[in-house]
Amino acid sequence: MILIDGKKTADDIKLEIAEEVKQLLAEGKKQPHLVAILVGHDGGSETYVAAKCKACEVCGFKSTLIRYEDDVTEVELLARIEELNNDDDVDGFIVQLPLPKHISEQKVIEAIDYKKDVDGFHPINVGRTSIGLPAFVSATPAGILELLKRYNIETAGKHVVVLGRSNIVGKPVAQLLMQKAYPGNATVTVCHSYSKDLKEQCLKADIIIAALGSPNFVTADMVKEGAVIIDVGTTRVPNANTKSGFKLTGDVKFDEVAPKCSYITPVPGGVGPMTICSLMKNTLLAGKKAIY
Amino acid sequence: MILIDGKKTADDIKLEIAEEVKQLLAEGKKQPHLVAILVGHDGGSETYVAAKCKACEVCGFKSTLIRYEDDVTEVELLARIEELNNDDDVDGFIVQLPLPKHISEQKVIEAIDYKKDVDGFHPINVGRTSIGLPAFVSATPAGILELLKRYNIETAGKHVVVLGRSNIVGKPVAQLLMQKAYPGNATVTVCHSYSKDLKEQCLKADIIIAALGSPNFVTADMVKEGAVIIDVGTTRVPNANTKSGFKLTGDVKFDEVAPKCSYITPVPGGVGPMTICSLMKNTLLAGKKAIY
Repeated sequence: MILIDGKKTADDIKLEIAEEVKQLLAEGKKQPHLVAILVGHDGGSETYVAAKCKACEVCGFKSTLIRYEDDVTEVELLARIEELNNDDDVDGFIVQLPLPKHISEQKVIEAIDYKKDVDGFHPINVGRTSIGLPAFVSATPAGILELLKRYNIETAGKHVVVLGRSNIVGKPVAQLLMQKAYPGNATVTVCHSYSKDLKEQCLKADIIIAALGSPNFVTADMVKEGAVIIDVGTTRVPNANTKSGFKLTGDVKFDEVAPKCSYITPVPGGVGPMTICSLMKNTLLAGKKAIY
Repeated sequence: MILIDGKKTADDIKLEIAEEVKQLLAEGKKQPHLVAILVGHDGGSETYVAAKCKACEVCGFKSTLIRYEDDVTEVELLARIEELNNDDDVDGFIVQLPLPKHISEQKVIEAIDYKKDVDGFHPINVGRTSIGLPAFVSATPAGILELLKRYNIETAGKHVVVLGRSNIVGKPVAQLLMQKAYPGNATVTVCHSYSKDLKEQCLKADIIIAALGSPNFVTADMVKEGAVIIDVGTTRVPNANTKSGFKLTGDVKFDEVAPKCSYITPVPGGVGPMTICSLMKNTLLAGKKAIY
């Protein structure tokens, strides 16, 4: 069993990006600039945005954090997005989700210029990813593909079972893995809460991508000997023994599943660090105007 | 075994549309207007476009056919598309594919205003379909869903195997059938030329959607007793006994597969007529500004 080290892979990639940024600056080109908008003080969101800003620093990007209180209006937020769309110094920007209930997340996502949509959530980027055109691919699916690539895991003709059909993980990773590409060319099955034959499907999978957000859902009896397991789950399960009072828990019951696998990602330290790293890659692409 | 009558279903829907158009006109509203651009004289394209114009007549739409010879330049075509985008009298328009090799189909597709893209090929419509937002859904997948709906075929929790990963059928129909909706909520597997376990996958399918363009590919030994078969294949196989010199042939070996099925679509007269009918539905939606 090989443990897929997302933390190390992400660190390697960030160094590669930093190297490229140095090169860009040496050529007199513009320093890539990522702006993050954070609304309110949700614990998870604070942590993610802080990590994103830190990653920008490592990569040599300029980063700006724009904060709003919970009571910001949708109109105010949309006006700021419009400003960022028109600001030539801003290469890419994200609005950290979730947003307070009085703001339409979908409206916000669609207000972002797709050419600066480094989260890859805009319908144009979703559609182009599906068609197989160059696009900002959303960060978690892109991170998963990068891990498969860096660990030379074969996907062509393999049976991939994706657990979960969310717009930001399940659906796009399924789309990517069925493309005529590497990683890709896989037979892809998408399972979800309505799936009756979930265990049977998993048992036949060469690769399982678990993105249900259901802690310890995938157990050893659901996994074929030698399977590759990518665990996207990161649920904060209350835990009295940790300083934070919770423990990040994946969708896979790691201890019993790991011995059966050829490759497996841990939680934390697997897909999580790759997600931020993919956002950095998208920011570099935006800075270089490599996609649009 | 129940034969799914796509021709009759399409005829019914066109009458429903015609009824609604009468209503619109009675209310003093605009007559929906579809424009089709046809480049060259490809036999298949001529037939399809003629059928589309005829369907417009049945539905009570205004329709306009714009013809170009094979040597039209990309610039000329794109200029005409821009004109149609800005023409308020035009509710929706399509450019019949395939196009001559010197014209980029993707450029043409993306040049069409997504609000008039009744073929549903523009990345925005593809992306919105995937996310589950209102969109012009591409015609063949929309037609397949309509057949499932009109025949009350259950899809929730069913295992659907889609054969083929084309941008206009395989990928979008897979996307639609995994949505939280009816028809939808299915466990969806997409197979293609790289799939190693294709027969095994098919044997477990409750519903098979065959869209490979490979005549008679699906044989009886690949189909579970009681399965639903949707045959999207329409290959023109040379045949000395027909007036046209060819015979439209599906992806399914109908004679041997049909007896095992609970429902099956014939070729011709199954999915084909529904495709044009979905284009009419999209045109009605465009005329009513019901989506954008």
